[in-house]
Formats: sequence, C-alpha cells, structure tokens
Amino acid sequence: MRRHPERGAYDRATIDAILDEALICHVGFVNDEQPFVIPTIHARDGNTLYIHGSPGSRMLRNIKEGIDVCVTATILDGLVLARSVYHHSMNYRSVVVLGRAREVTGRDEKLRAMQCVVEHVVSGRWADARQPNEGELKGTTILAISLEEASAKIRTGPPLDDEDDLALPTWAGVVPLTLEPRAPIAAENISAPPPSYATSYSRRP
Amino acid sequence: MRRHPERGAYDRATIDAILDEALICHVGFVNDEQPFVIPTIHARDGNTLYIHGSPGSRMLRNIKEGIDVCVTATILDGLVLARSVYHHSMNYRSVVVLGRAREVTGRDEKLRAMQCVVEHVVSGRWADARQPNEGELKGTTILAISLEEASAKIRTGPPLDDEDDLALPTWAGVVPLTLEPRAPIAAENISAPPPSYATSYSRRP
Repeated sequence: MRRHPERGAYDRATIDAILDEALICHVGFVNDEQPFVIPTIHARDGNTLYIHGSPGSRMLRNIKEGIDVCVTATILDGLVLARSVYHHSMNYRSVVVLGRAREVTGRDEKLRAMQCVVEHVVSGRWADARQPNEGELKGTTILAISLEEASAKIRTGPPLDDEDDLALPTWAGVVPLTLEPRAPIAAENISAPPPSYATSYSRRP
Repeated sequence: MRRHPERGAYDRATIDAILDEALICHVGFVNDEQPFVIPTIHARDGNTLYIHGSPGSRMLRNIKEGIDVCVTATILDGLVLARSVYHHSMNYRSVVVLGRAREVTGRDEKLRAMQCVVEHVVSGRWADARQPNEGELKGTTILAISLEEASAKIRTGPPLDDEDDLALPTWAGVVPLTLEPRAPIAAENISAPPPSYATSYSRRP
C-alpha cells in the first residue's frame, strides 16, 4: 500500500465483487514458523468467507483452536506495457482477508457453505448434482473467516510513463486478459447435451 | 498430499514448466506471527526463482537477514463437474516453493533478474523497452529463492464419480478454462501497430 497508495480500495461493495468474481483464492497460514500458501476454492456468504479446507491438511492440524490465515484472491485483467521497463505493470484486482479461521461444524451451516462454494464456482450446479450424504458431509472440511479485516487493491488503465519517455518509438498499451471457458467435454457415457451453465460459463457477473 | 497422493508430482521438468507458464504467483510470509499472501510476478532462471518484491512492503522489513517464504503458482485448467456434489473438483497445476528469500543486491544479477521477469511476462519485450537507469534499478526490489524445495500438484482429466452415481441423469464433464488475451489497447498517442508479442500473446509454451 505504501508504494502505490492510490491502488488501495476499501469499500465493501468493491471487495465483495472481487471475491465473487475470483474463481479461486490462495490461503496462507503458519505451521512451525513456516508459511504455507495453498490454492483452494472459496465463497462469500454475506460477511463470511468460506474456504474449502481439505487441500491444506497441514492447516487443519490445530484447527480446533482456530488458525490465523490470510486469504488472497486475485483477478488478472491485463498486461501493462510501458515504454520503460520500470513502468511495466499488470492490471489486476485483488482482495486480502486477514482473520482467524474456524472450522464449520454445524450440519446446517456446513451444508449451506458447501452450496455457496459450488454455486460460486458454477451458478446453477447445486440443484443438478447428487446431494452430499452424511459420510461426504463429514469428509468435507469447510473453514469460515469473517470479512471484517479485508482490503482490496486495484490497478487499471493504461501505462503511466515518465514525461521524458513519451516520445520514444516503443509501442505502449495494455493487453487485456480474461479467464475464458472452452467447449465442455462430456464424461464417458454422457450423451445428454451440456447444461447452459457449462456451455455459456462466465466469471463476469 | 495426503488426501490425493496421486496428484503429487515432483520431477523438476514438471515443476519448471508450471512455473514458466504461470503468469503470476502468490508469496506467503510471516510478520509478527501473522501470515500474509501477496500476488506478484516471478521468473525462473535455472534453479533460482526471482520474485518482484515491491508489492509486499511488510515482507521487506527484515529482508537483510533473509525471510522464510512460500511461493505458490497456480494454473487453472478447468471445472470438473461430477454427478455428485462431493466429487466436484478443478483441474489445475500448481507449484509450491519453500525457501529463504534473499534480496538480490548485485547490479548484474539484479538487471538479469529484471530481464527474466519482463521476459517471463512478455517474451520479446525487454529489448523493445527503455532500459532501467540507476535510480530505477535501486527502486526495484527483487528477491531470489532456490528451487531446491519445490513440489507440484496436478489434477487432470474427467470427474471420478462413485460407481453408484454413474447411472444418474446429471450431466458430468469438464469445462476447460484458459487465460486468454484480447486485442491490445494502445496508449494515448501511439499510432504504430502493436508488436506481435502483444497481438498473439499466449501463456502456452
């Protein structure tokens, strides 16, 4: 935040929109003084961020007492090519959430959190899929973090070159980037056409 | 690794290919017992991973003595829609690098690392852009981490549903995802056409 204070944005609507659009997040935690960063799936439900905890088995060792985490979600929007090497940058939107993660243990909250996570990834999918049974519910770990301590950082727009460099012949501009779906690939023995949430998938709201 | 040991892959060629294709990484570090995760740009040079350190000003506080970091790079390859909620997944390739980051202070190594980072993002760009002057070199922070302790995790292929669920009428399959460029947007007062590395940008090797 110090180097580019203008990139800081803190209103909750901005933070929520980034968390909702970002497909995955990276969860940071400390184990025996060593930091770990694990990619996982998240979903926001009001003021709570749920994350799928199973990938980070190290994270779960002391989870009963809660664990300090940093959850960061980043959306890449483009490459910023400036005339000078120094002013090259990326357009992006990111959110950093600091907080103490608790394990979701209540059956109702856990089921609802799982629904949020599935719907976050593919809106409309929950109702179509076979619902979790009791064993699967127990076999799934969901962590919850409050969004109280969340902040966003955003860079947008063209490169910002030094005045002295504007006359250089170097091309400058932005290469926009988006996460794009391609045609769905059906599993073996599936003959029905893919549902519309698969054929017209988009992260854009 | 415990839940899905089959997803672990450790050969260096696999690790290198993931690091080279991933556009950004997330760096985790600890400050006053609190984990932080910051998105930044990286580049691999043989057995060394360079990361652009400036975004994480907290990270740099004690950098002279080195700092324990976890650098994680994740490439999303697709959504895995299973017949059951439980077997939903993502196809992805990720690398986790654990190590002690040192600041690159030697002028020659720093310049070379900056070149690696720029070329990692847009191959061919370094030679076209105005080279860094002494002030810009000083104003850039680059950290180096050995790739000695690196591991990869990969999930690929179709959903793996339980035998009992195969007869369900639910569509199952994969929605592939890729980070796609769109048409370059020139900065103000640029009339030359964009270079080919901008018009036909691709993360694929």
